[in-house]
Amino acid sequence: MNVTIINIGDELLLGQVVNTNASTMARMLAEAGMEVKRTMVVGDTYQDIWTAVDNAIHSSDAVLLTGGLGPTKDDITKKPLCDYFGSRLVENGVALENVRRLFAVRGFELTPVNRAQALVPECCEVLNNDMGTAPCMWFERGGTVLVSLPGVPFEMEWLMQNRVIPRLQQTFKTDIILNKNILTQGIGESFLSDLIEPWELALPECIRLAYLPVAGMTKLRLTARGTQAPLLHQAIDDAVRELYRMAGQYIVGEDCETLAELVHRRLTGRGLSLATAESCTGGTIASQLTAQAGASAYFRGGVVAYSNEVKESVLGVRRETLAAHGAVSEETAREMAEGVRQRLGADYAIATTGIAGPDGGTAEKPVGTVWIAVADATHTEAQLLNFPGRRRQQNIERTVNQAFAMLIRELCRKES
Amino acid sequence: MNVTIINIGDELLLGQVVNTNASTMARMLAEAGMEVKRTMVVGDTYQDIWTAVDNAIHSSDAVLLTGGLGPTKDDITKKPLCDYFGSRLVENGVALENVRRLFAVRGFELTPVNRAQALVPECCEVLNNDMGTAPCMWFERGGTVLVSLPGVPFEMEWLMQNRVIPRLQQTFKTDIILNKNILTQGIGESFLSDLIEPWELALPECIRLAYLPVAGMTKLRLTARGTQAPLLHQAIDDAVRELYRMAGQYIVGEDCETLAELVHRRLTGRGLSLATAESCTGGTIASQLTAQAGASAYFRGGVVAYSNEVKESVLGVRRETLAAHGAVSEETAREMAEGVRQRLGADYAIATTGIAGPDGGTAEKPVGTVWIAVADATHTEAQLLNFPGRRRQQNIERTVNQAFAMLIRELCRKES
Repeated sequence: MNVTIINIGDELLLGQVVNTNASTMARMLAEAGMEVKRTMVVGDTYQDIWTAVDNAIHSSDAVLLTGGLGPTKDDITKKPLCDYFGSRLVENGVALENVRRLFAVRGFELTPVNRAQALVPECCEVLNNDMGTAPCMWFERGGTVLVSLPGVPFEMEWLMQNRVIPRLQQTFKTDIILNKNILTQGIGESFLSDLIEPWELALPECIRLAYLPVAGMTKLRLTARGTQAPLLHQAIDDAVRELYRMAGQYIVGEDCETLAELVHRRLTGRGLSLATAESCTGGTIASQLTAQAGASAYFRGGVVAYSNEVKESVLGVRRETLAAHGAVSEETAREMAEGVRQRLGADYAIATTGIAGPDGGTAEKPVGTVWIAVADATHTEAQLLNFPGRRRQQNIERTVNQAFAMLIRELCRKES
Repeated sequence: MNVTIINIGDELLLGQVVNTNASTMARMLAEAGMEVKRTMVVGDTYQDIWTAVDNAIHSSDAVLLTGGLGPTKDDITKKPLCDYFGSRLVENGVALENVRRLFAVRGFELTPVNRAQALVPECCEVLNNDMGTAPCMWFERGGTVLVSLPGVPFEMEWLMQNRVIPRLQQTFKTDIILNKNILTQGIGESFLSDLIEPWELALPECIRLAYLPVAGMTKLRLTARGTQAPLLHQAIDDAVRELYRMAGQYIVGEDCETLAELVHRRLTGRGLSLATAESCTGGTIASQLTAQAGASAYFRGGVVAYSNEVKESVLGVRRETLAAHGAVSEETAREMAEGVRQRLGADYAIATTGIAGPDGGTAEKPVGTVWIAVADATHTEAQLLNFPGRRRQQNIERTVNQAFAMLIRELCRKES
């Protein structure tokens, strides 16, 4: 089956908002085994919506729309849909009940404007939106399905997960899809590809492999597709076991979107604590960890030691170390990690110091020179990175990922 | 004139990559006065590219394509374009010279695969890509322009700015467009709209106004459009002066994308320094400041004081304060700001402490309760925020923006 996504909104065409809905929906559909053939963005304009729908409906099994379902007058998606399906707007009991419920929860009075959110084309079925007042509408015509969803990202995501994808799977009797992600680090994509080529060639037909590069690391995604879940699980398990045999030293985790998530998962519930000392990453390591609910279970805190004075006074890096080796050096990285670990009373510490760019490099230490260190009570490991580019944000992100990967390796080493 | 954007790439249809190119291009075009009517994403498939181009070319003045111009075999954009325009691939002197130059700079040998990047349809004109080896190709047919750009974001952005937009403006003799952004804070969008309604109604015809909400603040964008630059400048200047008269107390800056940028600009070159003490924002304030090149000129560093022990030991918050008022309190926020300012030797300090959610609230201090404080040598200002939602990331972002806004207000107060 093939799917077209149409995201509606003037703000998208003006570039005021990045269209994350398209990629979120595409990823969710791909993981459920449905192929997105095309995505489109059109404005909140009757004729443009009508044309896009008409165009898509003739070339797709399913058309998913987002946006234009709010209570204000610039949200007009229902009108062209109603006319397109030759229907009329009626107040829907399910939708009205939902609006009532949400207004009651928030303690607001139900206004006529909001009550109008329960008006939907008579020919559609309403899929209940537990997350908001905009209705999710399911239309069918000649074997093609059209679903209209709200554009608010978390409402859309909830509806896709809980209402739309299950219903599409049922309607189109799609295959079962299982995904398994394996994070690798410390080896380039092409070298990894060479290393595991025999394994890749020997994969059973039901499994496909994808390489997904993320700043400084490679994610392998195994996708098994078929009709019998136990067989698919077995095939994935076998393939993963063999992959560990061939490339286990580069594998840092499974089924995580990011390395910060992996660190979070590894430290949570094991009674281990972490502290950070960041120079060139400027707080990004701490912010990625604390973006996750529950980080306080292991994260004690961190120091963003941007100036040398702070490295000395707050972290206890020795003045002689800074004078002899400079702020960007193995010695400074080690003392930063050891200092923050001790002063914040943590089991583990990560430190970063480097030149993120675009300027500030020297012949001896060009832009992209970075030292990271990981310390525990008995041991400090340090690593030099040399990034080729001068782009600041990229160098910061790569440093963050390398630092997380190094911590994960140390945690693995301790466990084994 | 109206523009269609077509972004090509399987990775976009699989949701592995968010399509930031579409919004970047749309924003750049909108700022140059060109209207984007539609954006589309298709895969790296001959037929899909052909169909999308054919469809777009009949309904647009200009069609901009990105992607599929790399040296590997899955990059196929040139083939359908060549056939669509009834042309043939030839080696282009300008493109070849560019590839040679870039390989010489990097010290690499020019391989046949890379030399093939200089092959382009004979009928197009190559716009030189100073940033990379993929050619940028300009086609014309019956008054419609089609431009094929590389998908690498920074190459695309450079080409749009320096080659494509100037050429489109020249070709279509578009109006001159001037934009002016005014950041406001501390007043809701609808209250602001009421307050400045008389001003808005009195704006000259050449100026349009847009409200752009960003977490916790509202950006006003004035867009002047016409043929005579001096008149447009004058109209914008007059409107801005009048806006300050009516709503000056809510204006925190001009022509900045973010509040972090505004803080950066205000502190750079004035000999003032800043330190941060973050609890609930977990390093996000520091990371947003240090994401900007040159932050070391004013940013001394920060402490992410996630646990109470760190608030005490590193920041010097008194144990009695924490015991009597709790970590999320005005008193703690004040002592955090004062402590970090002193210990890091900065002129100013920002502190945040709160409950970002989704859990961890109490009846007295529900999720969304946040205290922020800004301290200088003589004075500490504290503010309570009560965010209604339980979404962690949103609460963190709003706190960061409110903290920056508060710092900016204090800086303004000092100057006046």
